[in-house]
Amino acid sequence: MTHGSIFVGELIGTAILILFGAGVCAAVTLNHSKARGAGWIVIAFGWGFGVLAGAYTAAPKSGAHLNPAVTLGLALTDITEWGDVPYYLLGQMAGAILGAVLTWLVYFAQFQANADEDKALPTLGIFSTAPEIRNPVANLITEVIATVGLVLPILFFGKNPGTGIGRIPGTTAYGSGIGILIVALLVVGIGLSLGGPTGYAINPARDLGPRITHALLPIPNKGTSDWGYAWIPVVGPLIGGALSALVYKAAF
Amino acid sequence: MTHGSIFVGELIGTAILILFGAGVCAAVTLNHSKARGAGWIVIAFGWGFGVLAGAYTAAPKSGAHLNPAVTLGLALTDITEWGDVPYYLLGQMAGAILGAVLTWLVYFAQFQANADEDKALPTLGIFSTAPEIRNPVANLITEVIATVGLVLPILFFGKNPGTGIGRIPGTTAYGSGIGILIVALLVVGIGLSLGGPTGYAINPARDLGPRITHALLPIPNKGTSDWGYAWIPVVGPLIGGALSALVYKAAF
Amino acid sequence: MTHGSIFVGELIGTAILILFGAGVCAAVTLNHSKARGAGWIVIAFGWGFGVLAGAYTAAPKSGAHLNPAVTLGLALTDITEWGDVPYYLLGQMAGAILGAVLTWLVYFAQFQANADEDKALPTLGIFSTAPEIRNPVANLITEVIATVGLVLPILFFGKNPGTGIGRIPGTTAYGSGIGILIVALLVVGIGLSLGGPTGYAINPARDLGPRITHALLPIPNKGTSDWGYAWIPVVGPLIGGALSALVYKAAF
Amino acid sequence: MTHGSIFVGELIGTAILILFGAGVCAAVTLNHSKARGAGWIVIAFGWGFGVLAGAYTAAPKSGAHLNPAVTLGLALTDITEWGDVPYYLLGQMAGAILGAVLTWLVYFAQFQANADEDKALPTLGIFSTAPEIRNPVANLITEVIATVGLVLPILFFGKNPGTGIGRIPGTTAYGSGIGILIVALLVVGIGLSLGGPTGYAINPARDLGPRITHALLPIPNKGTSDWGYAWIPVVGPLIGGALSALVYKAAF
Repeated sequence: MTHGSIFVGELIGTAILILFGAGVCAAVTLNHSKARGAGWIVIAFGWGFGVLAGAYTAAPKSGAHLNPAVTLGLALTDITEWGDVPYYLLGQMAGAILGAVLTWLVYFAQFQANADEDKALPTLGIFSTAPEIRNPVANLITEVIATVGLVLPILFFGKNPGTGIGRIPGTTAYGSGIGILIVALLVVGIGLSLGGPTGYAINPARDLGPRITHALLPIPNKGTSDWGYAWIPVVGPLIGGALSALVYKAAF
Repeated sequence: MTHGSIFVGELIGTAILILFGAGVCAAVTLNHSKARGAGWIVIAFGWGFGVLAGAYTAAPKSGAHLNPAVTLGLALTDITEWGDVPYYLLGQMAGAILGAVLTWLVYFAQFQANADEDKALPTLGIFSTAPEIRNPVANLITEVIATVGLVLPILFFGKNPGTGIGRIPGTTAYGSGIGILIVALLVVGIGLSLGGPTGYAINPARDLGPRITHALLPIPNKGTSDWGYAWIPVVGPLIGGALSALVYKAAF
Repeated sequence: MTHGSIFVGELIGTAILILFGAGVCAAVTLNHSKARGAGWIVIAFGWGFGVLAGAYTAAPKSGAHLNPAVTLGLALTDITEWGDVPYYLLGQMAGAILGAVLTWLVYFAQFQANADEDKALPTLGIFSTAPEIRNPVANLITEVIATVGLVLPILFFGKNPGTGIGRIPGTTAYGSGIGILIVALLVVGIGLSLGGPTGYAINPARDLGPRITHALLPIPNKGTSDWGYAWIPVVGPLIGGALSALVYKAAF
Repeated sequence: MTHGSIFVGELIGTAILILFGAGVCAAVTLNHSKARGAGWIVIAFGWGFGVLAGAYTAAPKSGAHLNPAVTLGLALTDITEWGDVPYYLLGQMAGAILGAVLTWLVYFAQFQANADEDKALPTLGIFSTAPEIRNPVANLITEVIATVGLVLPILFFGKNPGTGIGRIPGTTAYGSGIGILIVALLVVGIGLSLGGPTGYAINPARDLGPRITHALLPIPNKGTSDWGYAWIPVVGPLIGGALSALVYKAAF
């Protein structure tokens, strides 16, 4: 794949991922949404099928990482070339910012209704994660382990013939077959099981990109963008991606 | 495929799609239904598995578009021939009207119970979409972006070997394999994530056909068919389908 | 396949189907169950994954019909030989009765707790279907159309290479691949969308077998077995299976 | 596969299974979790996708049993060699203990919040199973039949070409394709349908390993580890695995 193809694929794929993911958070959070209060099962499947949509879309262009922690894990195991990494990261960040803008447009009337200050809701939770109990060490550990729960299986999946992901560099065969479906269901599972404490960023671009969008958008009464927490969903997933690569290299 | 085969396939497939889709709306809405109040997760999976049922059924006859926005996107990218388009559209509209009649028959006793005026419910929401906040520009944008979330992935999916959809014109191989399963789960995801503001028509036939059925059926106390809104779930998805084709052509 | 293999396959497969299906009804209905009140989404997925479990188990022995309406549809379209039909039906009925007994054993302590008459629940709904509004004509139409929603797709699925069901008679290849998974998700969809009025028998053996079991088992305060309704979930699905075969023969 | 590879694969795979499975129990149980009270559908999908994650990860190393009842069923049917069995069991027990520790780390801040005695919750249910009605005979029967609902299909699945599990000993092809996906959905189904009375251990390692972890961890106000019940979720599943092998040998 060319660097341009990688950038475009990651841009489009990550934008779709965030459109669906931030979208489902808007759907269950905002007033005047038909899915208001629809619960955790809806959140988890919404994010998982966002991976499905974004990754099958990106796969022919870039191989569909959509996540700097995945890119790091694949680079540390020599599956992705280090020279391609900057183009993956740029596409992911640009896509995440763009996807959050699209979500805002889809729920524009609902966000505008937040102008009624008496019923104004904090809106950051639609874009980025926040912990239930603010404890940097515990939150970091949660994000590290939850990301290992994502990247370690992705790396090991590649050793299953017929369900491989990221195993044929330089071709569009990456992401063929059911590999992406399995990863999408894996992400549903991470949400259901490991999302309770911090809302499972498990992806630096997924959290930082929409946080930037939140800070810039003219949403009435939008509340804080909580930059003090922003480093945890970046650093935690990167550590988790690196740890996964270490375990993979020890195992094979 | 012959024009007759296309028409028959789209007729049967879209009828099944609407039978399941309008069916799940009836199931959660009507009094005396075992699924009454079962929530958004049920709505979204009901529509998605309606796509599964209708599309695998239609695939050997017509390739299973079931949606004018999909047909438009495939025609603009030269995957479907323009000469076939009218037969797709006719089959889709006829099937959508028929499917809504079947739903009415399945829930006949429940619709009749609506004759008790004191408890009469508005019934249009079972057949067609309506916005939570009536704002034509915002509603149109929502339908445009949500349809891009459907058609753009469908077009890009076709570049994934083994999960292609709509890529072998003139054969029944369209829709083979897991392509339709992935699209069905994609539709679940769109419902969960992007359905909050307008109820996600994302398909002109899905909205207009059942609206015609609603206007014609002798349902007691059925309420308005809301023709003032009817153009948005037609125009929005068509714009979304065309935009998806533009992005696809720019990317490949 | 030999007649003995067909009988054994249908016996085991239908027993598993009913164990899961009646099981999920027990799970959400009975006091002292961890899933009590878990809702319609649980019911629909429980029955659908019962099809998954039972059909992949039965497939190598019998091709996994598990339903007289499916057997009728396959025989009328010459996919199954008429000489095999009695062995399918016998296996299905015996399996359904056995599966209901197994469900009773799994929930034995919960059923015994029904001995406390003050809190005694009617138990028939765990075993067999009952309409929300008792109207024989409407209930029959509901079961006919819901069964068309099952058998028509199954017949058409067989024309999709790679997802065929019931298309290679005399071999164990029937049911290979993802065909059964798709049918299982189809059954989830039927439950979500078309189950509201009558509880979706869509299978004579699924309703009649457990009703016989219910009549025979020594469950305290078990309530009526409602034999007056029992013909509808037998006749309706058989009509639906026959109608599906007619449409299939007209289409191909 | 070497004994070392089997041990490592089962260790990692079972740890992931328990991380997700105990994780989802923590998610719906603990105060200060975003998924608190999210219900039975979340529990069942969380455990099922834990199987998905753990088994696709373990498959290339060990073939992914992750469950002594599965190992017993595969050994009794001569699919797994008896000489390999101890390494499977050791890996499963070590992995289950490790996975429970990881879950504790993910939810560390939530467990610490249990130090406030007034709101302290019993925590064993996050790690191990407990019956709703304590009746050793009934509970044992429930676990036996529920495990037959797992192991019998797994054994029969192996006769479906393209969806086989455990059928190519000595190679990494075990677990290829959709076999593990089907088993994961089967486990969702068992949870939905058969989990009501005892919480569906259906796996001695899944129950005993985390119970040991629970007994050892310094969780504030953690409550009893209920050793009096611990034998049932060990013995019941082993009987179920052996019964499944008997039925399989009679059928083929």
